[in-house]
Amino acid sequence: MRLTRYFLPTLKETPAEAQVVSHRLMLRAGMVRQASAGIYSWLPMGHKVLKNIEQIVREEQDRAGAQEVLMPTIQSSDLWRQSGRYEDYGKEMLRIRDRHDREMLYGPTNEELITDIFRNGARSYRDVPRMLYHIQWKFRDEVRPRFGVMRGREFLMKDNYSFDLDQAGAIRAYNKMFVAYLRTFARMGLKAIPMEAETGPIGGNLSHEFIILADTGETEIFCHRDLIEFDILGSGVDYENDDLQPIVDSWTKVYARTEDMHEAEVFEREVPEDKQVRRRGIEVGHIFYFGTKYSEPLGAYVSTQDGESVPVHMGSYGVGVSRLVGGIIEASHDDAGIIWPESVAPFKVGLINLKTSDSACAGACDELYRKLQEAGVSVLYDDTEESAGAKFARMDLIGLPWQIVVGPRGLKSGTVELKRRADGVREELSPDSALSKLAA
Amino acid sequence: MRLTRYFLPTLKETPAEAQVVSHRLMLRAGMVRQASAGIYSWLPMGHKVLKNIEQIVREEQDRAGAQEVLMPTIQSSDLWRQSGRYEDYGKEMLRIRDRHDREMLYGPTNEELITDIFRNGARSYRDVPRMLYHIQWKFRDEVRPRFGVMRGREFLMKDNYSFDLDQAGAIRAYNKMFVAYLRTFARMGLKAIPMEAETGPIGGNLSHEFIILADTGETEIFCHRDLIEFDILGSGVDYENDDLQPIVDSWTKVYARTEDMHEAEVFEREVPEDKQVRRRGIEVGHIFYFGTKYSEPLGAYVSTQDGESVPVHMGSYGVGVSRLVGGIIEASHDDAGIIWPESVAPFKVGLINLKTSDSACAGACDELYRKLQEAGVSVLYDDTEESAGAKFARMDLIGLPWQIVVGPRGLKSGTVELKRRADGVREELSPDSALSKLAA
Repeated sequence: MRLTRYFLPTLKETPAEAQVVSHRLMLRAGMVRQASAGIYSWLPMGHKVLKNIEQIVREEQDRAGAQEVLMPTIQSSDLWRQSGRYEDYGKEMLRIRDRHDREMLYGPTNEELITDIFRNGARSYRDVPRMLYHIQWKFRDEVRPRFGVMRGREFLMKDNYSFDLDQAGAIRAYNKMFVAYLRTFARMGLKAIPMEAETGPIGGNLSHEFIILADTGETEIFCHRDLIEFDILGSGVDYENDDLQPIVDSWTKVYARTEDMHEAEVFEREVPEDKQVRRRGIEVGHIFYFGTKYSEPLGAYVSTQDGESVPVHMGSYGVGVSRLVGGIIEASHDDAGIIWPESVAPFKVGLINLKTSDSACAGACDELYRKLQEAGVSVLYDDTEESAGAKFARMDLIGLPWQIVVGPRGLKSGTVELKRRADGVREELSPDSALSKLAA
Repeated sequence: MRLTRYFLPTLKETPAEAQVVSHRLMLRAGMVRQASAGIYSWLPMGHKVLKNIEQIVREEQDRAGAQEVLMPTIQSSDLWRQSGRYEDYGKEMLRIRDRHDREMLYGPTNEELITDIFRNGARSYRDVPRMLYHIQWKFRDEVRPRFGVMRGREFLMKDNYSFDLDQAGAIRAYNKMFVAYLRTFARMGLKAIPMEAETGPIGGNLSHEFIILADTGETEIFCHRDLIEFDILGSGVDYENDDLQPIVDSWTKVYARTEDMHEAEVFEREVPEDKQVRRRGIEVGHIFYFGTKYSEPLGAYVSTQDGESVPVHMGSYGVGVSRLVGGIIEASHDDAGIIWPESVAPFKVGLINLKTSDSACAGACDELYRKLQEAGVSVLYDDTEESAGAKFARMDLIGLPWQIVVGPRGLKSGTVELKRRADGVREELSPDSALSKLAA
């Protein structure tokens, strides 16, 4: 993409309304604009990041055997009365009356609706296990929405729901999601740590939240260093045939708690001093096993092999997709701007033409631009007439993993500069070498 | 995907509430379920088709130079008061009050919001032309929602908005979308014909609707046969450098009108008798040029090269993405069920094991299943224990383009049966030949 044609309204000033660094950087980098309180429009660069994150979430859900569906945003209140949650949700639920004065709502979550879909489509033990997920916008009418997309009112969430014949089956589904979440966040360059959690308004018996490390995070966390150093992507996983319980156990047997659940004494006793980690973090995922809490009132029963009718055991598993955009920035930025992990970056490379009026520079840049695209490398090409300083600042701000800087002086000796955004390391090399390095 | 694990709740009975064939078939094929009046949940197979259609729309928008954004579903009423449309929209607009009693609405379209985004991000002639589109759920509170996803209340739409310095620029954008739409629908196996249209509540000066041919369509259409026979995908198009006006002219110079605009006398006079086509059709796209209708009241001005401040000229361009799922079925089905064009099919191949208890059949099927997947061919593998008749009927109903039928008798002579769903043509051939035919 040529920057002269790209809709990228970056800001030089820091917007006064933004309290946290990810919100400031997302506004300054032209990724989002507020449409109204807690509701955002995603501009082209923000949208690309959102889609990249969504795709990683999707791939890991599919890999774990879940099937994608899509439920609507607007729901009838009927099912929520059956489950007993219509009143529970209070003012956070956006309630709507349609033109026929029917009570509707903008879904804050989907346990009721998916249970209804399942009960109408499943009859027997042959129809379980199933995991059905969707990636859909939700609405929670927060009193004071803040922190940009980190606590918006309209937000994108992946929510998965599992249906099993019994508790043992449901725990297998829970474990699949436990491992899938570790893989999902690791692929985004995040260190995510599962922590035992309260079940809150979803209800249920067993629950973990997944907290990513970020110095600017909302929550203080306490955990064993092994959890941070463990490399989940280092070994493959066969969701169908592996017993995942040992993997889950290895993550849950050591101390890992948020400030709400923290007990200093237990921490000191259980974790050797050199293994004690005190950091800050952000919740980006939450998984629940809640048994028959919804299947019983909503009548989601299947027949067993013996012909008995039993309510299915269920769990639900959420990832805050839009929240992750902010979360990744909180975990990965410096004073100059965002530092995108390659897996979610809007473009892999920023190509800077230092002197557009110079035909050698323009020629070299045009060729690099074409060759990078031919090699399947996404590139944002700064072909504007602005000053070198403005170009450097903007490229650092938007945080693409690699920068190629092309100037008249370097070209005379046949080189361009390749800079890695994460650590600022620079290298002079020929355009072809830069190309083969990035296309690898 | 193995059918024994797939959430595909097909129905044997025809649901009483469904009036049109696409609605009946989508319910019977387990693609969607009604959540409430005019609001649908997309089950795994329906969701796949929806995503395939969305992806074709996206690719053709990108190819034409448009940039993807994502605006929220919930909007504030403020901008709609500025444009003067807040009252105009009447009861079709879903109006909402949030917990602070602020007037919000579920967006039925996005001219106001995108104009606001553009005006805050653009300053001068350097910031045009731009085309920004999103693919987002909309809500129109129809009095009587019907025809399934063809006229739902919550529906998925691609809407693109163009911003240009003057009318000539806006017409270039209009022409790009005109051609992009022809390509988009052609890629879905549809014959789409642009017809001059009323501009309706969007307003403006120039407008075409795109009608696809379907015998069960809602509208009668009258046109010149050349429009149906023209192959838009036969020649490439360079959106940046080609003059598209001659292409557009070739489509607009001959007679093509819906029943609302039809004049029998003109039709008879202008179109030779052997070229007169009377068919039925379904509207799936609508494009508008409306000049400064929104940029003036909302203040979307840019400075020209002479330093003058002028309101941008705009157009908007919609495709009914969820509607197309129904539209394609209306255009492509028979008594046995759906006939998916390959480009949008949920799976390319249905693999039927006629006798799961036979180890030769199971072995041959498992191997075909594995090899097809390795070759990147999507396949739904019917590994259930149901009767051959039930398997054939279901596979025809869900309409995958190809079926491979594996039975004990054929295997003895080393063959399987390959059936093309569209015309029912069958062929006996070796499993390897079937594989190489489908992987081509």
